[in-house]
Amino acid sequence: MKNTFGNHISVTLFGESHGPAIGVVLDGLAPGIAVNEEIIKEFLAKRRPSSDLDTARVEKDPFQIVSGVFQGKTCGTPLTILIPNEDTRSKDYTYGEARPSHADYAAHKKYHGHEDYRGGGHFSGRLTAAIVAAGGILIPALEAKGIHIGTHIYSCAQIPDRTFDEILRDGLSQSELADILLLLREKTFPVLNEDAGEKMKEKIREASQQNDSVGGITETMITGLPAGVGEPWFDSVESELSHILFSIGGVKGVEFGGGFALADMTGSSGNDALRYKEDGTVYTESNHNGGINGGITNGMPVLFRCAFKPTASIAKEQKSIDFLKKENINYKGKGRHDPAIVRRACPVIDCVAAIAVADLLTGRYGTDYLA
Amino acid sequence: MKNTFGNHISVTLFGESHGPAIGVVLDGLAPGIAVNEEIIKEFLAKRRPSSDLDTARVEKDPFQIVSGVFQGKTCGTPLTILIPNEDTRSKDYTYGEARPSHADYAAHKKYHGHEDYRGGGHFSGRLTAAIVAAGGILIPALEAKGIHIGTHIYSCAQIPDRTFDEILRDGLSQSELADILLLLREKTFPVLNEDAGEKMKEKIREASQQNDSVGGITETMITGLPAGVGEPWFDSVESELSHILFSIGGVKGVEFGGGFALADMTGSSGNDALRYKEDGTVYTESNHNGGINGGITNGMPVLFRCAFKPTASIAKEQKSIDFLKKENINYKGKGRHDPAIVRRACPVIDCVAAIAVADLLTGRYGTDYLA
Amino acid sequence: MKNTFGNHISVTLFGESHGPAIGVVLDGLAPGIAVNEEIIKEFLAKRRPSSDLDTARVEKDPFQIVSGVFQGKTCGTPLTILIPNEDTRSKDYTYGEARPSHADYAAHKKYHGHEDYRGGGHFSGRLTAAIVAAGGILIPALEAKGIHIGTHIYSCAQIPDRTFDEILRDGLSQSELADILLLLREKTFPVLNEDAGEKMKEKIREASQQNDSVGGITETMITGLPAGVGEPWFDSVESELSHILFSIGGVKGVEFGGGFALADMTGSSGNDALRYKEDGTVYTESNHNGGINGGITNGMPVLFRCAFKPTASIAKEQKSIDFLKKENINYKGKGRHDPAIVRRACPVIDCVAAIAVADLLTGRYGTDYLA
Amino acid sequence: MKNTFGNHISVTLFGESHGPAIGVVLDGLAPGIAVNEEIIKEFLAKRRPSSDLDTARVEKDPFQIVSGVFQGKTCGTPLTILIPNEDTRSKDYTYGEARPSHADYAAHKKYHGHEDYRGGGHFSGRLTAAIVAAGGILIPALEAKGIHIGTHIYSCAQIPDRTFDEILRDGLSQSELADILLLLREKTFPVLNEDAGEKMKEKIREASQQNDSVGGITETMITGLPAGVGEPWFDSVESELSHILFSIGGVKGVEFGGGFALADMTGSSGNDALRYKEDGTVYTESNHNGGINGGITNGMPVLFRCAFKPTASIAKEQKSIDFLKKENINYKGKGRHDPAIVRRACPVIDCVAAIAVADLLTGRYGTDYLA
Repeated sequence: MKNTFGNHISVTLFGESHGPAIGVVLDGLAPGIAVNEEIIKEFLAKRRPSSDLDTARVEKDPFQIVSGVFQGKTCGTPLTILIPNEDTRSKDYTYGEARPSHADYAAHKKYHGHEDYRGGGHFSGRLTAAIVAAGGILIPALEAKGIHIGTHIYSCAQIPDRTFDEILRDGLSQSELADILLLLREKTFPVLNEDAGEKMKEKIREASQQNDSVGGITETMITGLPAGVGEPWFDSVESELSHILFSIGGVKGVEFGGGFALADMTGSSGNDALRYKEDGTVYTESNHNGGINGGITNGMPVLFRCAFKPTASIAKEQKSIDFLKKENINYKGKGRHDPAIVRRACPVIDCVAAIAVADLLTGRYGTDYLA
Repeated sequence: MKNTFGNHISVTLFGESHGPAIGVVLDGLAPGIAVNEEIIKEFLAKRRPSSDLDTARVEKDPFQIVSGVFQGKTCGTPLTILIPNEDTRSKDYTYGEARPSHADYAAHKKYHGHEDYRGGGHFSGRLTAAIVAAGGILIPALEAKGIHIGTHIYSCAQIPDRTFDEILRDGLSQSELADILLLLREKTFPVLNEDAGEKMKEKIREASQQNDSVGGITETMITGLPAGVGEPWFDSVESELSHILFSIGGVKGVEFGGGFALADMTGSSGNDALRYKEDGTVYTESNHNGGINGGITNGMPVLFRCAFKPTASIAKEQKSIDFLKKENINYKGKGRHDPAIVRRACPVIDCVAAIAVADLLTGRYGTDYLA
Repeated sequence: MKNTFGNHISVTLFGESHGPAIGVVLDGLAPGIAVNEEIIKEFLAKRRPSSDLDTARVEKDPFQIVSGVFQGKTCGTPLTILIPNEDTRSKDYTYGEARPSHADYAAHKKYHGHEDYRGGGHFSGRLTAAIVAAGGILIPALEAKGIHIGTHIYSCAQIPDRTFDEILRDGLSQSELADILLLLREKTFPVLNEDAGEKMKEKIREASQQNDSVGGITETMITGLPAGVGEPWFDSVESELSHILFSIGGVKGVEFGGGFALADMTGSSGNDALRYKEDGTVYTESNHNGGINGGITNGMPVLFRCAFKPTASIAKEQKSIDFLKKENINYKGKGRHDPAIVRRACPVIDCVAAIAVADLLTGRYGTDYLA
Repeated sequence: MKNTFGNHISVTLFGESHGPAIGVVLDGLAPGIAVNEEIIKEFLAKRRPSSDLDTARVEKDPFQIVSGVFQGKTCGTPLTILIPNEDTRSKDYTYGEARPSHADYAAHKKYHGHEDYRGGGHFSGRLTAAIVAAGGILIPALEAKGIHIGTHIYSCAQIPDRTFDEILRDGLSQSELADILLLLREKTFPVLNEDAGEKMKEKIREASQQNDSVGGITETMITGLPAGVGEPWFDSVESELSHILFSIGGVKGVEFGGGFALADMTGSSGNDALRYKEDGTVYTESNHNGGINGGITNGMPVLFRCAFKPTASIAKEQKSIDFLKKENINYKGKGRHDPAIVRRACPVIDCVAAIAVADLLTGRYGTDYLA
């Protein structure tokens, strides 16, 4: 509902880019989950601009947990994380000048001129810091239950990375997969193939030098989910995940397993053959369904990709409007921005996936599941 | 929540493929919406198997509105449509034999053996008949407010249709676009380019003859939505639409506007330039954002595509398991099935989009909006 | 939300008194719950008018389960019960003549003249038949988990029954309490003191002969609930129960434990002293809090009372308005009605309490809890 | 859902009594509502302990609005109010010693020992400060739409005040009623009859001197609500209001209009006769239904009463348990507490009523209604 997501574990997001603070309320958490502020800091650091590849806006993200934690653990009541805003340069923004492909004009029509337009206000990617902080609690809790989540840059500026599909064909054990995912989460520029990563960075730098930006695609794997989670129809795992994935600014496409490429296949080539392993566990030979059948997990890794449009903010002059003066203008961005959002998006995707997964598991197994 | 979707207008779906009936409860409808049973029949007919391209299961879909309508109009209380099941051939299904890429195994893990496995039970595409019946009420109500929805087969078996993007480049007026959408809804095989359609049909027949199936992609346009509808973050228009789109069996990808292709573009080529028309209305020169910025409509047509995997049911022998006997088997489908689901999916997509859109509009403008 | 109640187990109610059918969709039920149509029939029979104390409208309540049950058990998908309407006498109702203390005028303002006014339409107590049918599934499932619910007429026409508070002072074991509750549910006129019951009946007959009606108060006990169920603040056990109790037509007051009388006590007399039994279980010496502290069960029986206003429909002439003709009128009821609703309300209260309790338990312990 | 209430306008409550801060997120607010921090301060002051009648804990309630307000008005995004905790004396609380009629033991069973037990933690009445701060935004917004809310102490320590029912019999105009409600909100000890108020205070002081406490009943009137607001069944006005009223600690009973007394009346005496005024408006001669029929407003003032149990915390020795040591103890409260909560409850009741009413109105008339 609006700024609240989740039926069993819920997250409420608040704040504007240039207001006093942003933050998040996590409700429905089991009591007794360990809360490690150092891990939250690490998560925030991964999302932060960290090099010439990112915006020059420096965000230190000092945060404060103002409720829901007692003696280092969740106490079962709403956990609120507050992140004060600093280093804001509101003068970079002029009300009325709509930044192309941003929400400015749409927000103006929705809020009738009352919106906080500075830095995108509530629409700012800045709010994903609060989501990542929440993930810093949920992801370790999921890992303690054997559930791992990891995201890499599947492609950026048309440079492809190695894919999870290739890795799955190697027949790795679940713990080997988990290791790959943990490794990804530690990387500043999370790719499976470092050479591809270097080429991507080069392209990002090129775009930056040309006052332009590039888009990209992320790929996420979730391992360790038990079979039988999710609901047919409106609470399908795909529905829940896509709902929160499309909440993230810049996401314009989401696909599971084979996704759009699967639409080009035939039943005989696209179906996933089911098999028993010798130890009695069930697996599928391929994973075109991304670990989900009929909206419900089948025990295979859950796989999905998100298409991120190129960063809308560029320093090039563009055609736009001034909706206050009601006239066409040439707009040239002044703010500090990322030439590619896809690197910083990876931890955000991990964290929103964690929210959806924790919600589904808590609904199925009860409020104490993550304790 | 589970089988209920929507915050303001909600739809609750029920029924199993081989049970007594399927149906839907529509709640939150404005009082006074005209309910025309002939239109509902037409909608159901469009979803029905109608030729050698589809399953041989004959569904007459007689339906009964058992509540919520008085003197030919909605009375503002829950509107329930009941569609009894007929022509069921339950003996085609053997419990334990998991159909590859179907929900059988996942459902078994979820429901512990209590699931109604006949014909896919609650997971059956049969339930989309109830959704389409609901659409037969909502779509005319939206049209009365100037909002039109239409879906075509964007590609099938790798044969591409003409695209909405091409059509939008022609600079048609809103009423000309509406005419195109209305026309699509009347077509048995909805394509923009009839030649492409004929090639698709040929490919579908080929697949059928080979006991195989094909997938495809649908493309949907919604015109007439006012700017300012939707919410930042968790109730973004993309979130709401993708949530219900991924509820539909076989959908494995959803993209808005440029979608995955937009991820390959640069900011300078991918951004949509804003402009004033001479009459003072605002438009964008391109529509790579699919009519949505920051989760909120910007007044341009909303555009999205859904990737449908190839029909999982094929008459070819496939590797699978019998989860009762706990052994590997060779599975060969016996039921009656569609070699391509994408044709029959078009009206379903129209109708779920109508549900999401009606919900968003009712939330924004109040309970009497659609009256 | 509107006609849907519950976060984990939800019930969606539909139908109008004189429409084709009423019914209910129960979603979120664990798979594997036994469904016994004979028990549902018994529940419906208890709610039905059965003597000169009730309306002369004969309701046979034939019902059909159209989804969600397979081989005699819930299959985990939405369970829909349909109850066709029969024996309707719509000509007893004239649109525009507002029945005093009924919803006619309020509904007219809400639905702008589109409401189905016949027999109260969707507002009719008739819809409680669907609730009671749902209870016929939930109450046996709760009993299988050791949770018992029973309701008696605490007072009617100012004649008081014996109270649960008195019974609790006898120090009965939980199984003895359960026996009392089971006994109550079998009674046609559920009272703890039969003499009081006879006096109530006399008063009801008197009221009937005078073309008048009487009100009354019900009292409900729920035993066997584990301590720790419910939430602080907005999902308190009192909030959940009162929400659904006030949904029932005619309920104008709800109190838990000591309720309004507790407001007249002091802390030293009203507080419930906590004690350990020899077997290590915790109890309170009194139960003024009705088994709930801070919104959460404490393991003591949950106790609440509902105030039912006198049946609004009486055969006496009353001052009212005709909102079509926009004039004052003298209104005299023509329909068939109950001189006291409180007897037939007892099974309804049991069933809505079962819905709220099943929802809370399923949220806490997961979707398989009631299986 | 748990700590979030409301479908259209929602409030999310967080914080523990002795944690860093408490607070509230208000979502769904129309953009453009004036936010006056002085009024919020006044609201907080009314809830604050202010004399020998209340606890000695001094709460200055400095608050900060950290999101959702721009240039003095709501900007349509989540509005978050943070109230840091000060003057906490955690050493007054020993874990394991259950305070009788408090949530300590129930919370222990729910949170398995992880609860923040200091000062009642999340269960503390302290959190109502955040609710009252939210009300400081909503109540002026409702007043700007002609909707007024006021609460008085209907009875305390068995001393009755004058009643709203008596006042309504005087035939006052709506603006005269609004004046009475506004006057009540300004009073430190809100009663209609000051003599009764003096007697109540005396009784409260007596109780305090005896280390005891008293309960009481509040009565609330809401004027100016249009007819036609609310829903039949699960979103009845009574359901919505009672849901949030029973969220408030200490509330053990809620009744509308005649309430429990109405249960003792007959249809002929209890029904509210409808009449047209000369100016064409509709009214009822009595208001036993408290302005609500069939769950929907009828245009008459909404009337309800809440029963508050005597403050559980008293300085007298009481029988209790230590659930850590698992033994019976004699418990004597050490914290600072109110001998009567009912005075400070009045502004809290006003504010939760405002939340429920704002939610219902926004659902009916759309997101811009309160702007």
